[in-house]
Amino acid sequence: MLAPHTRKAVVLLSGGLDSSTVVAMAQAEGFEIHALTVIYGQRHEVEIQAAKLVAKALRVSAHKFVSVDLNQIGGSALTSDIEVPKDRTEAQMTSEIPVTYVPARNTIMLSLALAYAEVVGSNDIFVGVNAVDYSGYPDCRPEFVAAFEALSRVATKAAAEGESMTIHAPLINMTKAEIIEVGQGLGVDYSLTHSCYDPIKSRACGRCDSCQIRNNAFASLGLFDPALAHL
Amino acid sequence: MLAPHTRKAVVLLSGGLDSSTVVAMAQAEGFEIHALTVIYGQRHEVEIQAAKLVAKALRVSAHKFVSVDLNQIGGSALTSDIEVPKDRTEAQMTSEIPVTYVPARNTIMLSLALAYAEVVGSNDIFVGVNAVDYSGYPDCRPEFVAAFEALSRVATKAAAEGESMTIHAPLINMTKAEIIEVGQGLGVDYSLTHSCYDPIKSRACGRCDSCQIRNNAFASLGLFDPALAHL
Repeated sequence: MLAPHTRKAVVLLSGGLDSSTVVAMAQAEGFEIHALTVIYGQRHEVEIQAAKLVAKALRVSAHKFVSVDLNQIGGSALTSDIEVPKDRTEAQMTSEIPVTYVPARNTIMLSLALAYAEVVGSNDIFVGVNAVDYSGYPDCRPEFVAAFEALSRVATKAAAEGESMTIHAPLINMTKAEIIEVGQGLGVDYSLTHSCYDPIKSRACGRCDSCQIRNNAFASLGLFDPALAHL
Repeated sequence: MLAPHTRKAVVLLSGGLDSSTVVAMAQAEGFEIHALTVIYGQRHEVEIQAAKLVAKALRVSAHKFVSVDLNQIGGSALTSDIEVPKDRTEAQMTSEIPVTYVPARNTIMLSLALAYAEVVGSNDIFVGVNAVDYSGYPDCRPEFVAAFEALSRVATKAAAEGESMTIHAPLINMTKAEIIEVGQGLGVDYSLTHSCYDPIKSRACGRCDSCQIRNNAFASLGLFDPALAHL
């Protein structure tokens, strides 16, 4: 008997909590994982290390790194000299699109994932966008994912030849606490992940929006965020 | 009296015949030009030089270069070791999508243009895609441009705040000869442009699809392609 055909999925993996969980979720659906880490100018070495560690721990089939120097374009606290805000209240975090928004970031990352998917012969791209905790990011909304999926179905040679494409955003309506619960059920080791916007000596600062959202979610489950164990 | 407000346009400029013409066309419509050259791994230095020379000759307001290493992803004769075809007949050129197709290239380039447009405050992106001469490229079709425009209207902070976005593809239904006629009328110096897929000692080969299509178009107008003057 032939082994069942394993479908390939391209998963955008930053090394953060969300995308690491998505890798495990795609695996649980039976996909063979081709992880793609986009190095876009904001990255501290610790983030790339986290992506490598997560990919290794979850035993992905392949892991690509693609660099794009978005700091040439700027416009974000993550790619230029704008200061990363700290110690904001939840109301402040959700009242407007933060300066950590990177212009067109998810469009760019999904475009690269689309190229990679075409090369490996995958009809499925997974991305860890989330509309709940980061309600301000325009490219984390369901309408953005739907528009990118529509684009992907006309953009490639594979599409022109009749192949379909699905953009999976399994976290889009989940809270951070729900994401952590799912990930723990799938064996994700969150001590390997890194989500901080402004690490100090390669460790999470504990004060940026991203650290606070993670920390609060772990706390709501009666847990400690292992990425903040040093604080 | 105040000077009329000049609208900014981001124009994707490769340094080739098409995109150089598009810069002149956008200028003729009154736009202030912010040119963007995407260095994606295929580039010979001569192409970047051509983009610089064209941008200078047409006196654009700004010219950015962004690198993205698509050779990490591969899948094309322009970004990997696949051989560039030579001396093909017109029937061969148009019968299938050529190996010079770069997976998701125009999606990636337009995504970067979208980021740049958001940073400079532009609601207009120009791209020199053309559905006539390169009928095989899926991301040169009108439905691709329309899908990207729809995406761009939900993808950015500017879009979330109510700004619109138009993707202009003024060449999409023009023949190469028509493009050349328009460009000559607008003063484009085609001797500065470079379109060859496989230059020899920084000069056009004259034999790849791109060289042949250019050369035939100039010939149909009773002209010589100045990029092939050395042959």
